[in-house]
Amino acid sequence: MRKIGLGLLAVFLGIGAAFAAPKVDDSKDWRDVDPANLVLMDVRYGTIAIELDPQFAPANVARFKALVRAGFYDNTSFYRVIDGFVAQGGKGGESFKQWPTIKGEMDRPAGGLDFTPLGAPDLYAPQVGNVDGFPVGEEKGRAWILHCPGTIAFARDKTADSAATEFYIVLGEGARQLDRNYTAFGRVIDGMQYVQKLNRGDVDVDNGVIPLVSRRDPIIRVRMASDVPPIQRPHYQVLRTDTARFAAAKDARMHPNSPYLVRKPPAALDVCTMPIPVRTVAH
Amino acid sequence: MRKIGLGLLAVFLGIGAAFAAPKVDDSKDWRDVDPANLVLMDVRYGTIAIELDPQFAPANVARFKALVRAGFYDNTSFYRVIDGFVAQGGKGGESFKQWPTIKGEMDRPAGGLDFTPLGAPDLYAPQVGNVDGFPVGEEKGRAWILHCPGTIAFARDKTADSAATEFYIVLGEGARQLDRNYTAFGRVIDGMQYVQKLNRGDVDVDNGVIPLVSRRDPIIRVRMASDVPPIQRPHYQVLRTDTARFAAAKDARMHPNSPYLVRKPPAALDVCTMPIPVRTVAH
Repeated sequence: MRKIGLGLLAVFLGIGAAFAAPKVDDSKDWRDVDPANLVLMDVRYGTIAIELDPQFAPANVARFKALVRAGFYDNTSFYRVIDGFVAQGGKGGESFKQWPTIKGEMDRPAGGLDFTPLGAPDLYAPQVGNVDGFPVGEEKGRAWILHCPGTIAFARDKTADSAATEFYIVLGEGARQLDRNYTAFGRVIDGMQYVQKLNRGDVDVDNGVIPLVSRRDPIIRVRMASDVPPIQRPHYQVLRTDTARFAAAKDARMHPNSPYLVRKPPAALDVCTMPIPVRTVAH
Repeated sequence: MRKIGLGLLAVFLGIGAAFAAPKVDDSKDWRDVDPANLVLMDVRYGTIAIELDPQFAPANVARFKALVRAGFYDNTSFYRVIDGFVAQGGKGGESFKQWPTIKGEMDRPAGGLDFTPLGAPDLYAPQVGNVDGFPVGEEKGRAWILHCPGTIAFARDKTADSAATEFYIVLGEGARQLDRNYTAFGRVIDGMQYVQKLNRGDVDVDNGVIPLVSRRDPIIRVRMASDVPPIQRPHYQVLRTDTARFAAAKDARMHPNSPYLVRKPPAALDVCTMPIPVRTVAH
């Protein structure tokens, strides 16, 4: 039998090939993820690995770490989940004296960041690119983490400085409108497939809140990787986004050279769809 | 206790409110989905409802219907699934004498379609909008269904006219580069949450093919709604996208007026993120 059906494969080869296991030492192209900024969130489908970035939101990152280390999120749930938008988790609708509201950090000065422009326009921001793999927007000297799929941010009440404990993970690009309105402070670097498995609510009925508690996916356990014994701790590396290698990968995606393409795609690139390679390294 | 945590809710209210259950007869705002163009695909998580559009790809829609009615997809699987890209299904890698390759229908004349422009720019096409709820691009007198999340298209070999039986459903906006390169012929109108639950493969290892057969999500059964007894058949309606009501919904999304927004979002709208309301009607 002739092999067909895998016809879509080569469309991605340009990307896959750029990151194929190299024979040479390429360690300078990769950045180690600091276990002190790595969150391991267990859901029933697997473990979601989230890298926090204190450069963008030091106070909010500190709060999230403190909540994690206090076991606050253990045995809570993703109770409001809207497909294509966000999965919201925590102890829905409660406030806690020991966790007062904190100041929003929706953006920060653009200076002092290792920002690499994407090299393509964006619908929502005048300039977009990457900082250490995080998708970032820039405008008039300010910078912020974009609400791309995988971004984690704090939910809040109506005022800017009203976040306390609840967070959400972005599921789809419908959340880009929340850029600079909520404090985005990290991103999923592994296990996004488990986030996508979370049971959804109905935006038209309860605005995404899942009424049946048993249908809400539990957040089983959340730990800082730095609190996990080193031998059990995953060692992640993220491809550096300030390298010639990443620039070549972006170029290959904007100008794909695949035998499967019968028409040249437009030379466009949505920053949220540019894969940021992540790998684990054996101890 | 003060209720917080639902802080993200109102961000979506502008959209929800536009489609809240009305007291008046609004039937003229809705279009009935023809059961002859409605596919019901059972996976272990639920039923995925797909509307086919013969306006865009008559020969490919006819082929897909014939395959469904022949039971071709029953007991096959989604065997190649790449998060943020596509879920590919069918009998991976085989060709069949009784299902010869068919001509690609990547685009069609723009004339004769009830096309409503989105009213906002797009990264990939000079003009985008909707036809009967389908996301559509236009350029120089040609029109095509966009590779937005939920779009279904035929996979193929390297040449334009080499599709036969395998299909894919778009999972994320990373697939927009496939626009006009593959024949898109329908979209998921209900059950996208079940598509997002499909087990993923690893793009870096086997280009998304799931090596362990037991990890591939089965396609349990696929039927044309017109072949289901009327009393068991869901009656779907899709909000008409050529109405003042949909125009108002797009405007509300581009210019959200929510007490939760502390900064006015840019007046942008990604065509793939504009919700197209769907409802079921009791028999």
